[in-house]
Formats: sequence, structure tokens, C-alpha cells
Amino acid sequence: METFFSFLERRVDDSSSLLCVGLDPYIPDLKEATAASALDFCLDLVKQTAPYAAAFKPNAAFFELFGADGWAALKKLILAIQKESDRIGSRIPIILDAKRGDIASTTEAYAQSAFEYLGVDGITLSPYLGKDSIEPFIHDQEKGVFLLCKTSNPGSGDFQDLIINTGAGTAPDSFAAIKGRPQGMPLRLYEYVAYLAQHWNIKNNIGLVVGATHLDALASIRAVTPDMWFLSPGVGAQGGELELALRMGLRKDRRGMLINVSRGISRAESPAKAAAELRDEIIGIRRKLKQ
Amino acid sequence: METFFSFLERRVDDSSSLLCVGLDPYIPDLKEATAASALDFCLDLVKQTAPYAAAFKPNAAFFELFGADGWAALKKLILAIQKESDRIGSRIPIILDAKRGDIASTTEAYAQSAFEYLGVDGITLSPYLGKDSIEPFIHDQEKGVFLLCKTSNPGSGDFQDLIINTGAGTAPDSFAAIKGRPQGMPLRLYEYVAYLAQHWNIKNNIGLVVGATHLDALASIRAVTPDMWFLSPGVGAQGGELELALRMGLRKDRRGMLINVSRGISRAESPAKAAAELRDEIIGIRRKLKQ
Repeated sequence: METFFSFLERRVDDSSSLLCVGLDPYIPDLKEATAASALDFCLDLVKQTAPYAAAFKPNAAFFELFGADGWAALKKLILAIQKESDRIGSRIPIILDAKRGDIASTTEAYAQSAFEYLGVDGITLSPYLGKDSIEPFIHDQEKGVFLLCKTSNPGSGDFQDLIINTGAGTAPDSFAAIKGRPQGMPLRLYEYVAYLAQHWNIKNNIGLVVGATHLDALASIRAVTPDMWFLSPGVGAQGGELELALRMGLRKDRRGMLINVSRGISRAESPAKAAAELRDEIIGIRRKLKQ
Repeated sequence: METFFSFLERRVDDSSSLLCVGLDPYIPDLKEATAASALDFCLDLVKQTAPYAAAFKPNAAFFELFGADGWAALKKLILAIQKESDRIGSRIPIILDAKRGDIASTTEAYAQSAFEYLGVDGITLSPYLGKDSIEPFIHDQEKGVFLLCKTSNPGSGDFQDLIINTGAGTAPDSFAAIKGRPQGMPLRLYEYVAYLAQHWNIKNNIGLVVGATHLDALASIRAVTPDMWFLSPGVGAQGGELELALRMGLRKDRRGMLINVSRGISRAESPAKAAAELRDEIIGIRRKLKQ
């Protein structure tokens, strides 16, 4: 049976693309501040960019904003992406950007909402509540999660950059995950999240969110987790540089990194052209790195 | 103008209660697995427990599960609580348990969803993304947030208990928040979250989620933040002991702690009686602590 990441890799190869098209119907970009307008905005983007998209990533916040109508629109959008996948003959993974995380039966309800009600393939989650908050999302190897690790925003340093004291005997079971790390080498919280995520990734369905705006973090997280997939926002509007980010973040097989672009595509005169160009730019950089 | 916590304190005094009634329409507890049944379940709870509730806390997950219908039900529930408040002549704060957290314009969309579309008074947030992910929620001093600090679930130790190295020059601006902490005293991540939250709490609208299941954490976080409000789940179903939790967590004025109970009330033969008894038990403990 397929895992989430073998499914993603098939699509990556089918489309020769590492581009994740973010579907963020930001109100100032819409014709009207309505759920219907948000849906139209996204449907147009899907239609224009599907051939170049390794994945689509709708962000729940921009739908939730419209309440019940927004959730109905999100459900319709997901069905439309699945239909578009059928049309082009290559299934495109849908990752819900939701950054959820809760305890016990509550986190199960969120998993049910994402995977059963909405029917997405993957979801972003916050790691702060620990492993039991993630488990209901990773039971099924065909469904995947991307754990927030080092996010692209300016405030990401407030907690994620903190240096962890590994000698003090806290969380003793978990420190098994950092075995092999050179003694005395500072361990940042985001690196520890990466180590633990890798330790938990026994079904090949856990990845990490690592902002393309933080080149040092990309490099150090790649060093810690040579095989994991990253979902990397921040190229374009947030100022991340594509080539440098790919150099730091790609795996040795020059895969392992989804470059998420939202407004850099949706605000272009032709989103189709912008997505095609980004896809091709990434192909060019990957080719260069092969040499 | 009132702040979120002066509003909450007024209700606490009006009701002589520190009880937060959790509205978690967990499917196995419903007549049918429908949004309408979830709404009925919650409306009955609200009606029965309003006189004893210092606050109500619906959890978004159990509504999101039903998609658009669930969000419509959640909106109706909030209107019904507001109507019930009017009926009893004392406004009861509504805290949406959502544990959200995202970047920039996305986190603004979540704030708009909670405070404008749904019209709740407060919300729970994850701290992992840092201050800028929280800012849109705290602009308006009448709206409040509870940041996840030390959660009640077994996995909470995976990251929250990590010991932070404060001597290494990371996050230098932020370490201003721990000024006065004795040198060499280990600082856990959850304590640092508490310090920073207190540092950011200039409008009296930031509180902390601290599970009643962790007595040591309650005591150490209270030591760090003598004046902040805690939202404390875990009494009852999760095994937290009420009296010990209150001893560790109450402020000197014997307020500062909302005891959240969900299934311990909803599954009781008479939720009204269960809520009244819990309210009275808390009154008794607070009286004892005065002596």
C-alpha cells in the first residue's frame, strides 16, 4: 500500500514539479468578501496551475472566516481539485494548512474533519502538545502531516530558536532521538522537533514545515533529517530566495522539498504562466545542483 | 473601557464561580452523529448550567467535524449563550477552544473568524509561532486569549518540559522577560511561555492554559506569573484533583483560575446538579484557603 510520501513523490515525478500552490483567498484579493468569491478565486487558480502543481495547499483560515459558507466552499474546492486531478490523469495531493493540535478525542475530531469530512490527503499541525496530539493523524499511512518546525514569520524565533539543555535528564525517552548528535553542539527547539518527528516517522507520512526565509535553519534541519520532506513557504512575498533555499533544503535525490507559493502566483497577471515559470525555474536549479 | 479579564472577573463575582463549562459535543455522547444533535446537546448544557458557569468553552473541533453544518451550529450556540446571558442578567464570557496559530494575514483571518464571525470573547492559541501570531487577537483589550502553556495530556512533556539554556544568547530581547529569575534555576519551556505571555500582557487580556493534571507545573507557573489567569482543564475525566489544583494555581485573591469541566458535567445524570455541586465545592475550597 502507498504511503503519503510515495503518493506525493509520484505526483512530483509526474509533474516534474516541487511547486505547492497555496490557495489563500485573502479578502483584499477577492471581487467580493464572500465565500462564493473565495471559491471562484481558488477554482480559477486550480484550473490555471494544476499542470504545474506538485500539491495544492488551501489555508483553512481564509475559509473559516466565512463560517459555514466558508466550510462549504472549502469542501467544494477539494472536490474540484480531485476532479481536476482526474481530468489531467494524475492525482494531486491536497494539504490542508490548518496548524491544528489538541488533546485526545479532540485531536481525533480534527483528524476526522480533515481526512473524512473534507477528504484532504495531508495537513499541517503544531507540535507543541506532543506526540499524542499527532497520532490520530498518522494512523493511516496514506494520510500525511507536516509538523511546524521552523516557520517563516519574524516571530518564529521567540520559541523555536531556543536552545535546549539536553544534559538535564528531561524527557529522557525522547532524547533517544538525538543519539549520534555531537556532544556540546547546541540543540535548538526546532532541531529537536525535527529529530522527534523523524523518530516518529515510521510510516513515511510525517514531514516538516521549514520556512524558505531561514537558510541556516533549512541547512541544519536537513542535516538532522536527511530523508524527510519539507514544506517550505516564504519564497516570493515573504522574501525567501528560491535557489538558496533549494540548495540548503533539497535531499541528495534533489527531492524532499515542496516550495509553497501563494500570492506570488495568485497576484501574477497570469497565474498559469507564473506557476509554469516557477516550476521550470525549480527544474533548472535542480539540474544545476546535479552537476 | 473594560478589558477581557475585568469582564471575566465581573462574571466570576456575579456567579461566585470559577467553573468553566466545556461544550464538547463528542459524537458517542450524542443522540445522532449530526450537527443538529451536537447543537441540541450543547443548548441543553447551557440551559442547565448557565447560573453556575463563570464561562463557557465550546471546542471548535467537535463542530468542525460536521463541516459547514457544524460551523452553523457553533454560530447558533454562541447566539444562544448570549441570549441566555441576557435572560439571567449577567454576561457570560465565551471562550472558543481552537488552539489556532498562524502567520501574518492568516492569523488575522482566524481572529476575524473568532471575534467577528462567531462573536466569541476569548480564544485558546498555540504559542509555537511566536508573538506575531498572537497579535491580531490581542489588539482589542475586550477580547482575550489563553496561550497553551502546560497542557493536560500525557504527551505534553515531549516539548513543553524541555529545559531552556538561557545563557547562550538566543532570543536576547525576550530574555528580558525572565529578569529576576534566580541564576542557575532550570527554566522549562512552559515556564518561558508563561514569562513571555506575562511580558506581552500589557492590555490585561492574555491568560494561560495550564492543565489541572500537573500540580508542579501549576505551582511553578503561578510563581512566575502571580497575577495571570489560568484556564485549567483536566479535573474529573482526566484525573486532576480539584482541591490540590486550586491550592497550587489560585492567585492570592483566590481568583485567577478557571476550572474547566466538560464530560464530568455533560455525562452526569443531572448536568445542572453536577455544575452546581462543582461550583459549590470550589467555593468551599476557596473559603478554606482564606483561613
